[in-house]
Amino acid sequence: MPVLRRRTVLASALAVPAAQAGWTSQPAQASPVPLAGQQAPSFFRYRVGALQVTAVHDGMAYRSLDGFVPNAPPGAVQQALADAFLTADRFPITFTTLVINTGRKLVLIDTGNGDLGAPTAGTWMANFRAAGFTPDQVDTVVFSHFHADHINGFRLKDGTAVFPNAEIMVPEAEWAFWTSASEAARAPAGLKPNFDNVARVFGPVKDHVTPYAWDKEILPGITAIKAEGHTPGHTCFAIVSDNARLLVLSDITNQPLIFARHPEWSAVFDQDAAAARATRRRMLDLAATERMQVAFYHASFPATGHIEREGDGYRLAPALWNSQA
Amino acid sequence: MPVLRRRTVLASALAVPAAQAGWTSQPAQASPVPLAGQQAPSFFRYRVGALQVTAVHDGMAYRSLDGFVPNAPPGAVQQALADAFLTADRFPITFTTLVINTGRKLVLIDTGNGDLGAPTAGTWMANFRAAGFTPDQVDTVVFSHFHADHINGFRLKDGTAVFPNAEIMVPEAEWAFWTSASEAARAPAGLKPNFDNVARVFGPVKDHVTPYAWDKEILPGITAIKAEGHTPGHTCFAIVSDNARLLVLSDITNQPLIFARHPEWSAVFDQDAAAARATRRRMLDLAATERMQVAFYHASFPATGHIEREGDGYRLAPALWNSQA
Repeated sequence: MPVLRRRTVLASALAVPAAQAGWTSQPAQASPVPLAGQQAPSFFRYRVGALQVTAVHDGMAYRSLDGFVPNAPPGAVQQALADAFLTADRFPITFTTLVINTGRKLVLIDTGNGDLGAPTAGTWMANFRAAGFTPDQVDTVVFSHFHADHINGFRLKDGTAVFPNAEIMVPEAEWAFWTSASEAARAPAGLKPNFDNVARVFGPVKDHVTPYAWDKEILPGITAIKAEGHTPGHTCFAIVSDNARLLVLSDITNQPLIFARHPEWSAVFDQDAAAARATRRRMLDLAATERMQVAFYHASFPATGHIEREGDGYRLAPALWNSQA
Repeated sequence: MPVLRRRTVLASALAVPAAQAGWTSQPAQASPVPLAGQQAPSFFRYRVGALQVTAVHDGMAYRSLDGFVPNAPPGAVQQALADAFLTADRFPITFTTLVINTGRKLVLIDTGNGDLGAPTAGTWMANFRAAGFTPDQVDTVVFSHFHADHINGFRLKDGTAVFPNAEIMVPEAEWAFWTSASEAARAPAGLKPNFDNVARVFGPVKDHVTPYAWDKEILPGITAIKAEGHTPGHTCFAIVSDNARLLVLSDITNQPLIFARHPEWSAVFDQDAAAARATRRRMLDLAATERMQVAFYHASFPATGHIEREGDGYRLAPALWNSQA
């Protein structure tokens, strides 16, 4: 096709006779389209039987590697980050909560960073609203544990309660620990701010929370699973509907790209590192054996998939993005 | 906390004194929130140096396994689907195009299914508009090859040209093949509909397309790479800006969860299976060796990440979802 080869790029673009081609008569783009400043609204819907889950992203925070994995050999964390094709000089912690529409109740598991997180976090409310929800629609907030990135979305810096109509469900053991004056008195300095933050968030509603026990169905289709170590009351959840199951793994790992691959490693946030390690192994092994769909709080959005074994560890195989809700 | 343990879920929810708790006086949710009918707008932005890429999803199509992988042993495809935690009774083909904003031009690589795809596909225009773009803003459409799921978005069923201001760039070898009367005359029956569809899509603009050659920079920062086999003119692209690189792998695999893991397998769409296999190996090996970010047309949305070696094959490690644009 010499005639075509001779055409220059520009000549071809300008030469289109609109009428002949069936094109519109709009003028050619006069000025460049500016680069967009916004990522997509970051929510993702999937079904668990008759239930509809909406993963709602709360952005990310970058953490210094310094001391982040106290029991990893020098250089090993950088190598693990590089192996996962992540920037090797800082640790990216992502946040994704779950909204579960049971058809009767709108249940939220964990609430994100609210307005107290890193500048790169705190996108939760925008994503939640983009998903079509409003905070007053939430019937129940279930907390997995009381770290700031899970509870601060419940109460803003200025004291505002974000979910005005929500019942509040908290793990019994978590509530007992973080509201205990004697535990606070004997806690190491590093834990003191979390006692204060728990008081800030839950103090105004302290007589109105519903503690839940482990290994019981705490709401229709939602069973709390003992998963202590990360915190004393850290909880996972089994979501069951019809023959479908979702295992909500909460913080049994921080970023699974690193800590599922290296389940022997502890993140600095693991309060009882040995117990957390045992829980991590037990839950990852359960997920791999049962081939259950899982969700992590700190996996890359949309933070759901399946667990496969790999070497001495595990890997999260992300779920296929489904364009149907 | 016996007092808390005694509270029932319902009693707790109803007992909250709004004033004391600082909650609003909005009434409790009276009726259940209906299940949502919409998935999130499915676009995803990422940077390649100074360029901004927006992956735009076009949904998926399900394909019967019958004859889909002609050279796979019986049962092996079902096993590979199960290994990837996919439903083993049908093959999910997902579609994701790329919009590249160079800062001066808005370039679209491939156009999706338009209004001629499966009922579960065809979400492209909604996602493209959700990303803030309009069709008249597209300065250049670059085609990787001429299969229907890549070109039908360029011209609707009723003949409408979708991108009124766009220059049209096509692979020289692809154009030569699919517009050749002698190739059409000797083609096997299975290929005939594609000749007809190419005539339908490009006929009205046949004198106004710009064929491009391989191994040349066809637009600033975008180099076409010879990758024949899937079709005679099938093309990959290297997108380079500053020190960043993106390797656009087009259809060197169908779903990489299956065909990167099993690069020796051919999808039924591979016109020259042996050449496609050689191209697949060469490009996946290049991506793994160079640790370049890659994009696939048929990977799970957002269809970008890095290639790692695994066993005799490869695996796509999906990119971290970044909440910044």
